[in-house]
Order: sequence, then structure tokens, then C-alpha cells
Amino acid sequence: MSGCVEAIRALLDRIDAREDAIGAWVHLDRDGALARARALDALAPAERGALHGMAIGVKDVLDTVDMPTAFNSPIHAGRRPARDAEVVRRLRAAGAIILGKTVTTEFAFTHPGRTRNPHDLACTPGGSSSGSAAAVAAGMVPVALATQTGGSTIRPAAFCGVLGYKPAFGRYPTAGLKHLAPSLDTIGLHARAFDDLARASAVMAGEAAPARPVLPRRPRVALVRTPHDGAAEPQALARLHEAAQALRSAGAAVRTIDLPPALVEVDALQHVIMAAEAAQSLAAEWASARDRLSANLAGFIAEGLAHDAAAVAAARARIAAGARAIDTLVGDDEVILTLPAPGEAPRGLASTGSAVFNRLWTMLGVPCITLPAGRGARGLPLGVQLVARRDAGDEAGFFAHARWVHEALAAAGHGH
Amino acid sequence: MSGCVEAIRALLDRIDAREDAIGAWVHLDRDGALARARALDALAPAERGALHGMAIGVKDVLDTVDMPTAFNSPIHAGRRPARDAEVVRRLRAAGAIILGKTVTTEFAFTHPGRTRNPHDLACTPGGSSSGSAAAVAAGMVPVALATQTGGSTIRPAAFCGVLGYKPAFGRYPTAGLKHLAPSLDTIGLHARAFDDLARASAVMAGEAAPARPVLPRRPRVALVRTPHDGAAEPQALARLHEAAQALRSAGAAVRTIDLPPALVEVDALQHVIMAAEAAQSLAAEWASARDRLSANLAGFIAEGLAHDAAAVAAARARIAAGARAIDTLVGDDEVILTLPAPGEAPRGLASTGSAVFNRLWTMLGVPCITLPAGRGARGLPLGVQLVARRDAGDEAGFFAHARWVHEALAAAGHGH
Repeated sequence: MSGCVEAIRALLDRIDAREDAIGAWVHLDRDGALARARALDALAPAERGALHGMAIGVKDVLDTVDMPTAFNSPIHAGRRPARDAEVVRRLRAAGAIILGKTVTTEFAFTHPGRTRNPHDLACTPGGSSSGSAAAVAAGMVPVALATQTGGSTIRPAAFCGVLGYKPAFGRYPTAGLKHLAPSLDTIGLHARAFDDLARASAVMAGEAAPARPVLPRRPRVALVRTPHDGAAEPQALARLHEAAQALRSAGAAVRTIDLPPALVEVDALQHVIMAAEAAQSLAAEWASARDRLSANLAGFIAEGLAHDAAAVAAARARIAAGARAIDTLVGDDEVILTLPAPGEAPRGLASTGSAVFNRLWTMLGVPCITLPAGRGARGLPLGVQLVARRDAGDEAGFFAHARWVHEALAAAGHGH
Repeated sequence: MSGCVEAIRALLDRIDAREDAIGAWVHLDRDGALARARALDALAPAERGALHGMAIGVKDVLDTVDMPTAFNSPIHAGRRPARDAEVVRRLRAAGAIILGKTVTTEFAFTHPGRTRNPHDLACTPGGSSSGSAAAVAAGMVPVALATQTGGSTIRPAAFCGVLGYKPAFGRYPTAGLKHLAPSLDTIGLHARAFDDLARASAVMAGEAAPARPVLPRRPRVALVRTPHDGAAEPQALARLHEAAQALRSAGAAVRTIDLPPALVEVDALQHVIMAAEAAQSLAAEWASARDRLSANLAGFIAEGLAHDAAAVAAARARIAAGARAIDTLVGDDEVILTLPAPGEAPRGLASTGSAVFNRLWTMLGVPCITLPAGRGARGLPLGVQLVARRDAGDEAGFFAHARWVHEALAAAGHGH
């Protein structure tokens, strides 16, 4: 058998053809991946793991014992972790092949890396999980690990036209993750295929296999209008409404609702929590190497340090009270349909785009997924976002809804 | 087969005999546990999970879908979680039977619950995992979930004479845990038997079974002197040195070292981090129901709110720098031997005792285990603590050392 070796060789060929232009990888472990593939090919069928041979890219904020992990910061250049992050360890134990480390923005905040959007090299791939989304979109790897503190998984998935999954907060262990804001930081996934996403997620959560999905007879969808809709591109909003219509035509019960004021307030306060926690998470770098932080990040840390602890605590209390509004906004078996990003990927690499359509859901800790929804006027991907109020126990139900929506959009001509 | 039902009945009998005196449980699910046991007894052998029939008590800071979870705070009296905490879900999925919720101090801080020490009802069981340690010590349940932010797992285990395990930070998912200080909060275990501890830990970590332990030919032990040793009872220090001698006699390489100044500073700074984070974790309770917090906790939150963010960040930076000292203090295959608590459980229930022998290790995120080490002058348990510098990947090696030490102490007459 040489199936794994052949698959890795095909991916490396693809990387050779496109990496110079795209810049998705900060470290590529060609020899290690091929050696691992050979070892996997030598296994008897009964010895194979749940992810036998699955090639995976790992965002460079997650530790890998055999590759440097430097968070795209000169402060940590050449850093060699003593161990794998727990999710990486689990993926390897299940037979996955870690192909390399993907480019992150500096410490997963806003200062961009060198990665370009595979659909238009003049545009950002989004961030902070820039390399993961771009590598998956370019066919360099079928699955990549991402993280989200604001909108760092969902938004680049939309800009690059791939599946992006931010699970419920706390679903995967975060040991070996460089934290930015621990009460928000959520490890997630970029993938091209749903099956890959579901299988990798189960392994990362420590489950033997994905639970069998159960879809309600008539899917229920709530199109949620947010105060940020006015900041979205008209074509993105139009596509969102076309998507809602396509789901109605496919048999879903679709209603339109407004984000209640309590959740608007939660949304607005995410920034306070993120700044306060980032100032604490990066305290060592701030103390010892402030001059080697980007101006973006240094300013954000200074903002976080300036927040009064009582004011941050008051913000948390308002968030805790306001967050309850999600429980009555949508039903237990209903998914929210909303935008994952303001529109197509912006031109230029200086900014990775806006997280205004992501912050609320990250703050609430609810699961979110980006589904591709065709192309925009500039030929770049558009997407929709599904959000559920459910937590970690119900991934199968959320995925069942997402697959159904994904297929309904594809059937209506709004897919990849 | 009626093995599970019989086992649960035996535990319930034991609880009936001793619970009025000890007060380890805040909620007991007699009917649910028996129904679950009957269902497990009806399973064919091939259908049984890794923890088939294991009865477990759950500290009342971890959510249970079928029992109230109120953190021993009147603010949350009667609270019914929508779902199980992720570790509880995993334990149930592996065939465990959740017998009930064990008494915690208020929000796992210092304000005590009603639990008494099974070895002397006039003494504290320690805390904050008071009910878990007492229930296991009294034979009411073989395993119970605990948590530790300062010394809340290790210290009550020492006071009650049971095994207490605080794994490396981040080893188990914390979804469904009421946080006190998220960068410190660690879910752990109390148990009577090592095998139960190892099996439950593997399931909570999402692993199929405990990894096979590998013990070095000659175990290496570092007896670490700390600045707090002067505050320990002379008999506790004497027992620690007897234990070291017993390990030497059994073949271990034992050396004595002092805690370096960098780690003394880390130890001293734990309190700052814990107060700052507790003020944020309990922001909603502080904002809406301050008058229903204990004076202890309200004072601690006020202290946390008074900490300047820049001062907390500076403390974190000093901690990050100082924490590196653990890497050179002991070897990768060496375990630290130190005290788990100042001595026997103090008289009275007003205080759960001091965490001075625990804070440093919690702050460092390293794995710790309490091993019983005979009795003290008042007839209450004494213990020793093992600590490793290893992280989540090496539990099997740490357990192998701990079992070896446990057996060597028992052979020398210093066991349970």
C-alpha cells in the first residue's frame, strides 16, 4: 500500500506549484510527512486510526514538538516547544499527518502575515488564521487548524471560500495554545469537505467518532438582522437573502428577526474583554520586548492595561446578563443565518478585514460555521454563517443543519 | 447480572450510615443511580464502557443536567444546568454512574460548607473540594471529581487520607465548570485506588484507556525545601523526611534541593492573579447580588478589582519569567517530593486550612498528587505530595512514579 505517500506527494506538488505566490506556510515538514505516510502505509487495515493519513496544517499559535512555533512574532523566533499541543497530539494519535505550520497574524491579533488570497493574490485571505484558510482553499491540504478570538476562523473561511468551524467555547482542550484572550480563544477548523471536518472535530474532542446526525423533519432557520448589516456590502446582504429564499424553497421554515438590544450590548463589550485579557496574556512580551510588538498590538495592550478592573468586571456582568437573550431569541433546534464577513475579501494585505460579524458569537461561546455561497462581483468568494445556541454536546445536530443548508445552497447555485 | 445495582446499594447503605454526621453531599440521586445501574447490568459484556458501573461523586461547581448545580451560593440556589459538564458527559458515556453532587465551599473559594472530616468530625475535611474528599475517605464513593485553583484538590486529599490528583493545567476540558480563576482552575480527582484514578483520568481526557506506565530503572526523587516549611507542623516535616528515607531504602535516588528565588516569587504572585481573575469570573454575582456573597469572597473580589491591570500584567510577566526555573530545578524523569498541606486537618470547620503548599504548583500548571503517609499525633491523616514538571502528555510516567512511591511508603508502614 502506498496510498498515504501518494496523497502527501500530490499535496506537496500542489504546494510547490502555488506556495511562492500564496505564502500560506511558515514551516513545511516534507520529509517528516513522507516518513509518517510511509509508516502509515505499512499498517495493517485493523491498525489504522480514525484519521488514517489525513493531512493537516496547524496554525502557528499551536505547539508542535517537531516544528518551530513562533506565533509570527520576532520575540519568539526559532522557539521549539517541548511538546505537541493537546489537539495536535490527538490528531497524530488518530493517524493524521501534520504537514506543516500555517501563517498566523502576530499572536493571532491583527498585524498581518505574508499570506495572499488564493482567489486573487492582491487581496487578503482574512485573518488571523490566514495561512490555514488559504492553504485549504488552494488545495494544499484538506484540513487546517484555526483559532478564533474575534473572527479569526469564520472570516478567513468566508474570504477564501472554504468551510470554517468555530465550535462551542471549550469543546477542545487548549493546552499548547498561545492564548490571546483565554475566555474567548477557541480552536477551530478549516476544511473543504464536511466529512473531514466532522471526523477531525470528533478526534480533537476526544470522541471515538462523530455522533450520528439527526435533522429535524423541517429545518428551522432564523435570519438575524444585526446593527452591522448597514456596514456590509449590498451584494453580500443580497446573497444572504437569496440564500434564505433558497432554504425556504428547499423546505426550511425561515423567519427574520432583529438582534435584541441586550445582544447588541454584548457585541459592543467584546472588545473590552478582549483588550483586558490580551494585556494579561501578553504581559511577558510587553514587559521584556515591547519594542518588538507591532504598533497595532502594542496599542491594543496599552488599551487593555488602561481598562479599570472594576469597569471590566462591570462589562462582564452586563455581558452575562445580556447573553441570556440568546436562549429565547432562537429555539433549541433552530439555526441562525447571518453574514460571516462584510463581503468579499478587501484589496491589499495591510488589513485582514473586519470582525464585526463575528465578535458577538465568539463572546457568547456558541458554535458557528462558514458555508461558501458563490462568488461576488470581483470574483472572490461570498459566504453565509450559521450559528446555533447549542453547546458542546450537540455538534452532530448543528452539523446536520449545516450540511443540509450547504447542500440546499449548492442546489440553488450558490455553493462553492 | 446485578453487579452494578449491588455495588450502588452498598454505597447507599454506607452513605445512610454516615452522611448525617459527615455532610459530604448536597444532592444524592438514589433513584437515578439505581436505574442507571440496572440499565448497565442489562448490557452484554461487549457493550460495557471503560468505566462500567464506576460510581462517582461530582463537586457542585460542575454542571449536571439531572441534578441542581448551585456552587454552594444562595445566589444560584436551585439552578438547573441545561447540560452536563464535558467531563461528566464523558464519564457517563464510558459507563460511570454519577451518584450525586458533593459539597463545595462557596464558588470553590474559602467560605466553608457543612462537611466534616470523616476521621474526626470536629475537624475540617479541607477545601474547597470538601465533600469529594470526605465522601471518598468515608467509603461512600470510590471516585469523586474535585477542582483546584489554589490547593483545593491536593489539601483535602491530605486531610482526609485519600489520593488527590491535580493533572497538568488544561488536561481535561472545562466546559460546564463554574470558573473562579480561569488561568488556574484545574479539574482533578479524589480516589481510593490508583487504578480507578488512572481509568477515570483517561476517560476525562478523551483517551480510550490509560497509557501503559514506564518506570525508570531507578526512580529519581527531589525533596524540595520551601520557604513555607517553617510553617508546617514538625510532625509533618518529620514524616516527609521519613518518607524520603523510605524511598531511598527502596532504591530511589533522592536528593534535597531548595526552591530557587524565582519560584518563591512565582508562589507569592499566585494570589494576585487569583484575586484579579476571581473578580472578573464573579463579575455578574458582584454586580447583582453582592450582599449574598460571603465576607471572605466579597473581600477577595474587592481586592481583585483594586489591582491595577498594569500591576497584574507585570506580575504575570514576572511569573512567566520565573516559571522557567522549574525546567532546570528537576529532571524530566524526576519527581518532586514535598508537603501537600501544613499537617493534620485543623480543628473546627471555620477554615478549610492553608494552601501555602499548593499555590506555586497550581500557578505553574504542573501535575501534583497527594499520597497518604500514615497518621499524625491527633490520629488524622498525614500525606506527601509528588509534583512533576511534565505536562499533559506524560501522565502515565507520573502515575508510574506515584504508584511506586505509594507502594514504597506502604511497605515502610507509612501508607493509608
